[in-house]
Amino acid sequence: MDRLTLYGSFTSSSSYKAMLYLALAGLPFSFRTAFSFRTVNLKTGVQKTPEYLAVNRWGVVPSLRHRGLTILQSNVILDYLARETGHFEGRTEQQRWQAREWLSWEADHITYVAKVRHSARFRASHPETIAEYRPRAEAALAVVDKIVQSQPFLVGDYCTIADIGCWGRMVFMAEGGFELANWSHLEAWAGRLKAMPGFALPYELIPSKDREFDPV
Amino acid sequence: MDRLTLYGSFTSSSSYKAMLYLALAGLPFSFRTAFSFRTVNLKTGVQKTPEYLAVNRWGVVPSLRHRGLTILQSNVILDYLARETGHFEGRTEQQRWQAREWLSWEADHITYVAKVRHSARFRASHPETIAEYRPRAEAALAVVDKIVQSQPFLVGDYCTIADIGCWGRMVFMAEGGFELANWSHLEAWAGRLKAMPGFALPYELIPSKDREFDPV
Repeated sequence: MDRLTLYGSFTSSSSYKAMLYLALAGLPFSFRTAFSFRTVNLKTGVQKTPEYLAVNRWGVVPSLRHRGLTILQSNVILDYLARETGHFEGRTEQQRWQAREWLSWEADHITYVAKVRHSARFRASHPETIAEYRPRAEAALAVVDKIVQSQPFLVGDYCTIADIGCWGRMVFMAEGGFELANWSHLEAWAGRLKAMPGFALPYELIPSKDREFDPV
Repeated sequence: MDRLTLYGSFTSSSSYKAMLYLALAGLPFSFRTAFSFRTVNLKTGVQKTPEYLAVNRWGVVPSLRHRGLTILQSNVILDYLARETGHFEGRTEQQRWQAREWLSWEADHITYVAKVRHSARFRASHPETIAEYRPRAEAALAVVDKIVQSQPFLVGDYCTIADIGCWGRMVFMAEGGFELANWSHLEAWAGRLKAMPGFALPYELIPSKDREFDPV
């Protein structure tokens, strides 16, 4: 397998999504995979330098390089990795499309969890804006909570990129004032993810220093 | 080819994206395609009825049914149709992923154009929220404007699902107070799309009555 390089930041839930996938799939630790993580220091604006813009036209994290391809946008990266490696894909054609639907849905809805957290942690939005975002975030969490009440994972009995993408985007929810314990089925689902080999939280998984990291 | 059924609404830019794809690909008018459009009347809440929730778990439009599969979320529908029919796919592997990246990006950014329009047309957001959304919408339009200054379409020389998805989401921009003429390269790009055989605007393309529509 060709070298995988992931560009990201330890404060970015989007970067975590891709990194968590790789960790759960065991790819960075496989003897066949040469893996590099490269921190893009968002505080100092590395994402807007010409060097990084040559990787990512929008100047955001994460970006993946593999087999001479550059793949951008966290959900596209998850789809690419699932198709490419077979890990965490749906088992039937319908389930593979369902997993992609959940990723698209999370970008429309769980994004509000990330936006409220972003406002609390980095740059405050107007209180009236947060007053619109917060109930949308809570509604999105309630949708996930309800689905995983009757089935272990979002598309059925096993973990797919849908779970990794949705969990990854909501991982910093406590920083936005959302308590996992308020959604008991969601909390149990997160527990199932946390019990999987390779699982880690962002600050354990992603190096925080602005240097190249290579676990191989 | 098996029957294609699209569920949507003529006021929904997401429905338009799927419908425009089909029109540009000529699929509803192909002798091989049995096509139905079914209006989901959003005003009377048809999208939240048990019958429609059995099609679309989130109670939104559009939904596509084809070959016994149900495909939700407009950008997933575009990806599905491109993979399935070959129309408006990228030509190289990198371009196919790039087209999907643009769809993911439009859901993050051109969505603000749709949100401002939704507030103006259907249900007003707080003015402070719109004050945050409008510059983000304008920034997204500027990104597209800049890209199509140096190339005819978003991933290169030819139209892909990236163009159909980005244009489709911004089609009602005038209702949000965004004048196409303010972005001259974007306007020229829209002109290239409008010159393609099969192109139509939403109100010409999607039946407005709450009845089943079958052009075949």
